Amino acid sequence: MSEHVYKKIELVGSSTKSIEDAIQGAITKAGQSVRNMRWFEVIETRGDIRDGAVAHYQVTLKVGFTLDP
Amino acid sequence: MSEHVYKKIELVGSSTKSIEDAIQGAITKAGQSVRNMRWFEVIETRGDIRDGAVAHYQVTLKVGFTLDP
Amino acid sequence: MSEHVYKKIELVGSSTKSIEDAIQGAITKAGQSVRNMRWFEVIETRGDIRDGAVAHYQVTLKVGFTLDP
Amino acid sequence: MSEHVYKKIELVGSSTKSIEDAIQGAITKAGQSVRNMRWFEVIETRGDIRDGAVAHYQVTLKVGFTLDP
Amino acid sequence: MSEHVYKKIELVGSSTKSIEDAIQGAITKAGQSVRNMRWFEVIETRGDIRDGAVAHYQVTLKVGFTLDP
Amino acid sequence: MSEHVYKKIELVGSSTKSIEDAIQGAITKAGQSVRNMRWFEVIETRGDIRDGAVAHYQVTLKVGFTLDP
Amino acid sequence: MSEHVYKKIELVGSSTKSIEDAIQGAITKAGQSVRNMRWFEVIETRGDIRDGAVAHYQVTLKVGFTLDP
Amino acid sequence: MSEHVYKKIELVGSSTKSIEDAIQGAITKAGQSVRNMRWFEVIETRGDIRDGAVAHYQVTLKVGFTLDP
Amino acid sequence: MSEHVYKKIELVGSSTKSIEDAIQGAITKAGQSVRNMRWFEVIETRGDIRDGAVAHYQVTLKVGFTLDP
Amino acid sequence: MSEHVYKKIELVGSSTKSIEDAIQGAITKAGQSVRNMRWFEVIETRGDIRDGAVAHYQVTLKVGFTLDP
Amino acid sequence: MSEHVYKKIELVGSSTKSIEDAIQGAITKAGQSVRNMRWFEVIETRGDIRDGAVAHYQVTLKVGFTLDP
Amino acid sequence: MSEHVYKKIELVGSSTKSIEDAIQGAITKAGQSVRNMRWFEVIETRGDIRDGAVAHYQVTLKVGFTLDP
Repeated sequence: MSEHVYKKIELVGSSTKSIEDAIQGAITKAGQSVRNMRWFEVIETRGDIRDGAVAHYQVTLKVGFTLDP
Repeated sequence: MSEHVYKKIELVGSSTKSIEDAIQGAITKAGQSVRNMRWFEVIETRGDIRDGAVAHYQVTLKVGFTLDP
Repeated sequence: MSEHVYKKIELVGSSTKSIEDAIQGAITKAGQSVRNMRWFEVIETRGDIRDGAVAHYQVTLKVGFTLDP
Repeated sequence: MSEHVYKKIELVGSSTKSIEDAIQGAITKAGQSVRNMRWFEVIETRGDIRDGAVAHYQVTLKVGFTLDP
Repeated sequence: MSEHVYKKIELVGSSTKSIEDAIQGAITKAGQSVRNMRWFEVIETRGDIRDGAVAHYQVTLKVGFTLDP
Repeated sequence: MSEHVYKKIELVGSSTKSIEDAIQGAITKAGQSVRNMRWFEVIETRGDIRDGAVAHYQVTLKVGFTLDP
Repeated sequence: MSEHVYKKIELVGSSTKSIEDAIQGAITKAGQSVRNMRWFEVIETRGDIRDGAVAHYQVTLKVGFTLDP
Repeated sequence: MSEHVYKKIELVGSSTKSIEDAIQGAITKAGQSVRNMRWFEVIETRGDIRDGAVAHYQVTLKVGFTLDP
Repeated sequence: MSEHVYKKIELVGSSTKSIEDAIQGAITKAGQSVRNMRWFEVIETRGDIRDGAVAHYQVTLKVGFTLDP
Repeated sequence: MSEHVYKKIELVGSSTKSIEDAIQGAITKAGQSVRNMRWFEVIETRGDIRDGAVAHYQVTLKVGFTLDP
Repeated sequence: MSEHVYKKIELVGSSTKSIEDAIQGAITKAGQSVRNMRWFEVIETRGDIRDGAVAHYQVTLKVGFTLDP
Repeated sequence: MSEHVYKKIELVGSSTKSIEDAIQGAITKAGQSVRNMRWFEVIETRGDIRDGAVAHYQVTLKVGFTLDP
C-alpha cells in the first residue's frame, strides 16, 4: 500500500424513510462528481417535523476519498 | 418570514424495533402537549440489553417548536 | 438494589444492512465472553464505501456489564 | 444569599439585524411567561441565507431563572 | 417494560455544604412540580467565592422523568 | 419538498468592523462561485490584535448549499 | 523511571452516600483483579432517583494501571 | 520569522452594548499589563439579564501574546 | 454594576479527603496572591491510587477574579 | 492587510515514517491544485497496524488558503 | 470481507524520545497479549517535565483489534 | 507526599523542525520565569505554510507547576 492522501467533504443527505437511506442518498449524489470514495463518518443526525411526525431525516456525514495520484 | 422565537425541549424515546421508531415515538408523545414542532436533533443513542440482545433503543433528542406569537 | 460496580468495554460492530444490525452484531459477539451485559452507548457511526455505495456500517459502542460480586 | 435552585430553558432567537438582536428577541419572548430570568448562555450561532446574503441570524441560547420558593 | 418516553430538564442546585447537597437540593425543588423523576446527569460543577473561600457549590444537572402515559 | 442533498464548505471571513460583517463577507465571497446557499453555522470566532486593539474579527463558518439535481 | 506502558479500563461505581464513595467502591472492586493501579479520571457523574431523592450516585471513571513488564 | 513562544491568558470582558464591545474592553484592560498581544479566541458568550432584558454581554476569550525574548 | 473585566487562572487542588476539600485547598492557596476572586469552575476530577485505594483527589478548576480598576 | 476570505479543506495524509511526514505529504499533495495555502490544523492522529507495529501514521488536518480576490 | 467485530482498548505509551516512539512502545507491549491489532487512534498527548525539559512523552491511544471468530 | 496545589499556564511553542521541538521550546522558554514545572498537556497542533510546505509547527500546550508553599 502506497502513502495515499485523502480528502474529506461534508454532505447532508435527507430521506423520508430512514437514517441509512439518507446516508446512501448523500453518497450516491456525491458519486456523480467524486471518484474513489472510501469511507464516511456520521457527524450529526437531525430532521424536520411536519404535522407531528418526522418528515425527513437529515444526516450530516463526511466522505473520504483518495486524491488521484 | 417573520422573526420567530423557538423553544427546544429534550426527550428520550425508546423502542424495541429501531432508532427511527424511538425518534418517532418521542415526537408523537411530545405532540400531545406541544404544537408547532419544527425539527429535531439526535443527541445520544443508547439502549439496554437483556439476555445478550438489544431490548430497547433509547434515543435522546431535542425538539424545536415555534413559540406562539 | 445493591451497590453494583460496572465495567464498560468498547466495541465496533459492522453490518452490510443497517446501523441496528451492526449494534446487535457487536453485542452478540461480546456475549460469547461477557455475562450480565446491561446497556450500550453509541459512540460513533461510520462505514466504508465500495463502488459508490455503503459497503458496511461500522458502529462504535460501549457496552456496560455488572462485575460479578 | 439563600440556596436557590435555577432552571434553564433552551431558546432560539432570530433577527435580520444582528446576533445581539436575536439574543434580546428570545429573552423578550421568554419573559412573557417566565419570571426572574437571571442569565443566558449562547450555545450556537447560525442563520439562513437568501440570495447570497444573511437573511436571519439564529442564536441558540440557554436562559437561567430562579424557581419561585 | 413498555416503551416509555422521558423528558429531561436542566437545573442548577446550590449549596454551601457540598456537591451532593446541591444535587439533592435541585431534585427536591423539582419534585414539587415534576412527578416520576428517574435519573440525573451532572453537566457542570462551579461555585462562587466570597472572602477567599467557597461560598456556594453550584451544580448544573439534567433530570429525566417519565412522561405520563 | 424533495429529498435534497447538501454540501457544506468551511470559510473564514474577516472584518475590521464586526462579527456580523465578517460573516456576511465570507458569504458574499463564496457566492461568486457557489449557487443555492441555504444556511451557515458559526464554528469559531477569533481575531488578531494590533496596538492593543482588535484589528480584524475572523469568523469561521460552515455554509450549506443544495447540490444541483 | 523506566518507559512504562499503562492500560486504562472504564468502570462505573455506585453509592448511596457520596461521589467519593462511588469512586472508591469502583477502585476496590477493580483491585480484586487488577494490580498496580496508579490513577483514575472521572468521566461522568450521574445517578438514579427514587421517591424524589437521590438513590445512588453513579460515577464513571477510567482507571490506569501499569502493565507488568 | 524567528521561532517565537506565545503565552495565552483567559479573560472575561463585559459590556452593556455589544459582544464586540465586551471583547475590545477585555483587550484594552489586558493591554495595561501585557505587551505584544497578537490574537484572541472567543471561548464563550453569555450575559446577565435584568428586568427581562440583556444587562451585560460577558465574553470569555483567550488572548495570545509573544513572550519577550 | 460597572463593566468589569475578569481574568481566569487554572489550578489543580489535591486532597486526601474529598473533592470539596481539594477545591477549597486550591482557592485558599490562590488567595495568597490573588485578590477579588469571584467564582470557580471545575474542569476535571481525577486522582492517584496507592495500594488499591484513592490516595489523593485532584481537581482542576478555573478561578475568575476581577482585575483591579 | 486587506479583509481576506479563507477557505478550509480537510485532508488525511499518511506516512510510514512520522506524524510530521504525514502532514507534509498532505500539504504537498494539496499544493498541486490549491494556491495560497496559509495554515493547517491537526484534527486527528491515527494509523494502521501490521504485524504488531505501526504501518502508517494517518493525520487528518484542515488546510486554510486565501480565496483569490 | 466478512462482518467483523472489533474491540478497542486504551493504552498509554511513554518514551523519552518522541511521540512516535511512545505510540510504537504501547503497541509493542499490547502485542504480547493481543492478536490481530488493526489500527490505533491518538486520544491525548502529554508528558512529564524534569529540570525544565521533557522527561517523557506520554501518549494515550486506543488500539482496535479483530475479535477471533 | 503533601497536598500540593498546582497552577497551569497555556503556551504556544513553534519550531521549523518537529512537534517535539516546538513542545521543548515552549517549556525551555517558560522555565526562564517558572520553577517546579511538572507536566505538560498538548491542546492543539497547527502550523503555518509557506510556498507549499510547513514553515512552522505551532503546538499549544498547558504546563503544570507546583505553587511554592
